[in-house]
Amino acid sequence: MREQALGRHLILEIWDADPHLLDDAHALEQLLLQAARAANATVIQSVFHHFSPYGVSGVVVIAESHLTIHTWPEYRYAAIDIFTCGPKMDLEAAVEVIAAGLGGRMVQLEISRGQGVRRAQRQPLALSAAQ
Amino acid sequence: MREQALGRHLILEIWDADPHLLDDAHALEQLLLQAARAANATVIQSVFHHFSPYGVSGVVVIAESHLTIHTWPEYRYAAIDIFTCGPKMDLEAAVEVIAAGLGGRMVQLEISRGQGVRRAQRQPLALSAAQ
Repeated sequence: MREQALGRHLILEIWDADPHLLDDAHALEQLLLQAARAANATVIQSVFHHFSPYGVSGVVVIAESHLTIHTWPEYRYAAIDIFTCGPKMDLEAAVEVIAAGLGGRMVQLEISRGQGVRRAQRQPLALSAAQ
Repeated sequence: MREQALGRHLILEIWDADPHLLDDAHALEQLLLQAARAANATVIQSVFHHFSPYGVSGVVVIAESHLTIHTWPEYRYAAIDIFTCGPKMDLEAAVEVIAAGLGGRMVQLEISRGQGVRRAQRQPLALSAAQ
């Protein structure tokens, strides 16, 4: 049924990762950018923040949607999302980069977004006035 | 079991929304910022992009995690995520703002992130050298 969806959304739950890496905003930004490139994504912008006393939130906006990460170093836990659209995307390659970079244990859940939308009649729009 | 999770992640699927609104990056940014404020979130940064010929991707990074939106105006469809942590967050208020703003039909799915992590022993870290 994946062909019927507009987007693929991977939910990654990661435990037992290196807490020092989970607290390093720069290293996590480089890792997610590497994952985005491995997935054949076009990176538009990345925003990463370190929180006190520890923890990082980061977003990589890609032309094909986004990657996000939120970390709790004190629990050695990270929540990662990879949301993509487009047939050229290689999500598995992105997951491999993240798994290799963070270590620990990973659980994956995939959600099809916009499931069934293509069954409805697509409506080309005259939107030139917008945006 | 929600008390055992570190984060609440709402997946919103929206159909039959106004296609012109779904193509208006500025209006969608204002809507998600309004939703973030309604949820008691602290907004750190927002990044919104319009794609050719139509469609918008947007991210609002909040201190409590993120809100994202990706739209397919030609299908009158939007995929929204609201990821939060912290007991003061009012996700239902954010959903109400989004539902009122976009109209159409909405399906919600909630995922508990970091489920069970608190059961493990929390490990305060000496991370002063990091970041």
